[in-house]
Amino acid sequence: MTSAYDLDLPKNPANYLPLSPLSFLPRSAMLWPDKTAVIHGSQRFSWAQMYARSRRLASALAQRGIGRGQTVAILAPNIPAMIDAHFGVPMCGAVLNTLNYRLDPATIAFQLEHGEARVLLCDSEFVPLAQAALALVKVRPLLVNIVDAQADFGQRLQGLDYEALLAEGDPDYDWPAPQDEWEAISLNYTSGTTGNPKGVVYHHRGAYLNAMSNALATGMSHATVKLWSLPMFHCNGWCFVWTLAAIGGTSVCLRRVEAETMFALIAEQGVNYMCGAAVVLSLFINAPATVRRTFAHTVHFNAAAAPVPVPIIRAAEAIGFKVQHLYGLTETYGPATLCLWKEEFSLLPEPEQAAILRRQGVAYPMLEAVTVLDPATMQPVPADGETLGEVMFRGNIVMKGYLKNPAASAEAFRDGWFHSGDLGVLHPDGYIELKDRSKDIIISGGENIASIEVEAALYQHPAVLEAAVVALPDEKWGEVPCAFVMLKPGVVSIDETELRNFCRDRLAGYKVPKRFVFGELPKTSTGKVQKFLLRDRAKAGL
Amino acid sequence: MTSAYDLDLPKNPANYLPLSPLSFLPRSAMLWPDKTAVIHGSQRFSWAQMYARSRRLASALAQRGIGRGQTVAILAPNIPAMIDAHFGVPMCGAVLNTLNYRLDPATIAFQLEHGEARVLLCDSEFVPLAQAALALVKVRPLLVNIVDAQADFGQRLQGLDYEALLAEGDPDYDWPAPQDEWEAISLNYTSGTTGNPKGVVYHHRGAYLNAMSNALATGMSHATVKLWSLPMFHCNGWCFVWTLAAIGGTSVCLRRVEAETMFALIAEQGVNYMCGAAVVLSLFINAPATVRRTFAHTVHFNAAAAPVPVPIIRAAEAIGFKVQHLYGLTETYGPATLCLWKEEFSLLPEPEQAAILRRQGVAYPMLEAVTVLDPATMQPVPADGETLGEVMFRGNIVMKGYLKNPAASAEAFRDGWFHSGDLGVLHPDGYIELKDRSKDIIISGGENIASIEVEAALYQHPAVLEAAVVALPDEKWGEVPCAFVMLKPGVVSIDETELRNFCRDRLAGYKVPKRFVFGELPKTSTGKVQKFLLRDRAKAGL
Repeated sequence: MTSAYDLDLPKNPANYLPLSPLSFLPRSAMLWPDKTAVIHGSQRFSWAQMYARSRRLASALAQRGIGRGQTVAILAPNIPAMIDAHFGVPMCGAVLNTLNYRLDPATIAFQLEHGEARVLLCDSEFVPLAQAALALVKVRPLLVNIVDAQADFGQRLQGLDYEALLAEGDPDYDWPAPQDEWEAISLNYTSGTTGNPKGVVYHHRGAYLNAMSNALATGMSHATVKLWSLPMFHCNGWCFVWTLAAIGGTSVCLRRVEAETMFALIAEQGVNYMCGAAVVLSLFINAPATVRRTFAHTVHFNAAAAPVPVPIIRAAEAIGFKVQHLYGLTETYGPATLCLWKEEFSLLPEPEQAAILRRQGVAYPMLEAVTVLDPATMQPVPADGETLGEVMFRGNIVMKGYLKNPAASAEAFRDGWFHSGDLGVLHPDGYIELKDRSKDIIISGGENIASIEVEAALYQHPAVLEAAVVALPDEKWGEVPCAFVMLKPGVVSIDETELRNFCRDRLAGYKVPKRFVFGELPKTSTGKVQKFLLRDRAKAGL
Repeated sequence: MTSAYDLDLPKNPANYLPLSPLSFLPRSAMLWPDKTAVIHGSQRFSWAQMYARSRRLASALAQRGIGRGQTVAILAPNIPAMIDAHFGVPMCGAVLNTLNYRLDPATIAFQLEHGEARVLLCDSEFVPLAQAALALVKVRPLLVNIVDAQADFGQRLQGLDYEALLAEGDPDYDWPAPQDEWEAISLNYTSGTTGNPKGVVYHHRGAYLNAMSNALATGMSHATVKLWSLPMFHCNGWCFVWTLAAIGGTSVCLRRVEAETMFALIAEQGVNYMCGAAVVLSLFINAPATVRRTFAHTVHFNAAAAPVPVPIIRAAEAIGFKVQHLYGLTETYGPATLCLWKEEFSLLPEPEQAAILRRQGVAYPMLEAVTVLDPATMQPVPADGETLGEVMFRGNIVMKGYLKNPAASAEAFRDGWFHSGDLGVLHPDGYIELKDRSKDIIISGGENIASIEVEAALYQHPAVLEAAVVALPDEKWGEVPCAFVMLKPGVVSIDETELRNFCRDRLAGYKVPKRFVFGELPKTSTGKVQKFLLRDRAKAGL
């Protein structure tokens, strides 16, 4: 039914522009031209400089034929070039694929091949990893060496120098804005719980909205100074790389998550915001007195990846941090819920406060819905804080889908909700709480480890009959992998070190089991290993 | 050129929902069910109650056949029913047309007819106005009497009772979300200084984005308690009606803008946010000691409509307000720029601070661009703080267009920019400053005189309460400035020569008013001085 409101009121260039986080950068360059945007060791870049660098990068890539719908991969820690890439790559129309440098060459190779990388920007520290991965692929990306002014590891890929590439570009490049806000802006591979990693595609609309949501949820402003302990390769730094440009804040780069460096940056650079996994907080809490620094201000810390144990929250508060849980997945642009702290909570007895601190909370400002449904019926579970269901999301900060994987996309989006695979409960006040991550995932230092992948490595060893890997609680990492192994008949015993080295040859370091337990595995009548029993044993200290 | 990123990654119900401010209400009802959403005299409504009332309204309207693309008009002050309507009306798919109750019956009649109102919700105070307007129109809207529990004026239209209508509705109504974020949500007529008013159409997308922009620009949170001195009929309360739901803040209703009531509400209800025209600040500053109240907290005041003279800003600061300029038009969903105060400004000498305080500032968080262009060439004026041009806007918080007026829409949107009709300059730091409406410029001996500049000089005089300067026809100079001045209470008279000399000390000679007229100034409903009436008086020889 057409009404007068549908007639003669079309979109036009004055009243409709595709939402894109790229628009934040020219605004901050205009508003805060001389304000420090990025601190990296002794280096400082203003917002005007960051905009010029990004335009140079976009222009140089465009001149080399890179454009719309093509993938530019980057293998780098949290350094200025990583921020350049978040703007410069999509400013030429391309899609940014940040690679996790903790992965093994085969997984990196899969991602380069699957994403059809046309360019690979690589920090000198990760040249050996890149070389090993490139040896396994058919794609032949243009190779660009990023030589961090603060840390040159001396090795180079056969290719260009990053700063020389920037010098090719035009700092006043009139970059093409996306024509449609549904266009892809970035590609983030999941850690691949089963089988190969899935390529999560973000679009400009979602990146814009979640970057703004971050500012609303955290109360960030141009006074924000964020220390980058969270790897930017995780969900584009949970979209915070873009948020900082939206608000004109300051990014403090960080190559390594070390207590001494972080304490110094907090005390000396006025860092007042951080985000990351619980393990980062543990580093602060457990730091030796020699590296500890005191600071008068409060550092707002948004923790995600896995719930932070309440004793850690309390200990962190005691030394100047204010901790708030966020929760989300790669598929939700990073954070999509927050444990919003109501003033009245502070009046509750400590055990009740602690119970609330454990929750993942409520929908992020621009998420339409998050709830806990029975996946069989798609009905909400009772809001009783007890009935388990699957956490599901709906809204504009849910991914575009998985690249070249319509079956996985359809499965994830079935029945009109994004299925997180995480189990949780719904409290009477509408807050959600995770009870068990999708059962087989081990979260170690913020990294997801699929037990099935570790088991697959173990199964390759000639002495292994059966293997089951579960999470072992760990003070430092939250969880570490623990392997229960049954040896083949006739094998009396095996050197644990040999098995560990065997895994190390096949897996990223953080995926290698820290404990091995030998013996028979508990099984169901149908022969399935009863992992929940093993988990219980691990929790009970084995 | 199609890439893998364009294939098999479509919008679906899990990852795409039309942006709409209606989504804020269920979120706040879930998150803050018992928190006070609305205070009105002795009445209190929680967010759960506001959601239930809005759903009842939507459901009752739908049952009576009101739906998509139909207009529901409302003639009411800032009372709870006005807030209900901002959600309940679009929740049935209809378009909310807020009417300015300070207008004459003929103009109200024009708007009812032109907007094809299907329903008219009318507060008992405005029954005579509504009756006079209805006598002039062919449309026969369903008439609904709002009887404010705090103020029943006794008169009724021939129709329903508003609370009875709510009682017809279902508090659990499963309202239809907009199918497209481009759908109309509200209709706001411009004040129409020349010819008929134009019907500015807002869509859900723009209302969502500007409501969120408000929160980002002002730093509002769930701790915000906003006193509604700004009429909600003006640009839907500059979209702040929706912002309050987005953040879970509290609205304090207000039927009349009176110093005594407002001081009491600030002191007793913890009001910490207000917005409105300069005249509201003047009321506070010039209030007699008997009604003044002191308060320990700061009230953030966003001023728009017309620039606030700096002496008023300083006087307001002295009694507990923090003033920040916003600027926009009905066509930009209300505020679309803000005079963002940088910390370094506070270090400048007072005259330079005062100069910055006068500016309208920079683009709102979700506006794509605002600048000053030469309307003949559409090129930016030099950023010299002096060259006059027309202020123009571009972005998603620019209106859908004028209802049933494609010619006016095309004129406003020509060359891809929304033409504001306001004259301004661009400062070297990118801040814009209004100099005048084009029709307010006085041309004297070939020199342009910005009336605003002359008024700013007059406002510095301690005896001046309000000042408006317009063109007086002059045989020799073509036009000369003529000042209409209202003196402060208690100032019986002032020597005209003293005022002239006062101006001469502060202005170029040709800018000094040649005539002074003392008395009350005619104002629009929103507190803007009606300069066209003063111009008419000047043309008629005063």
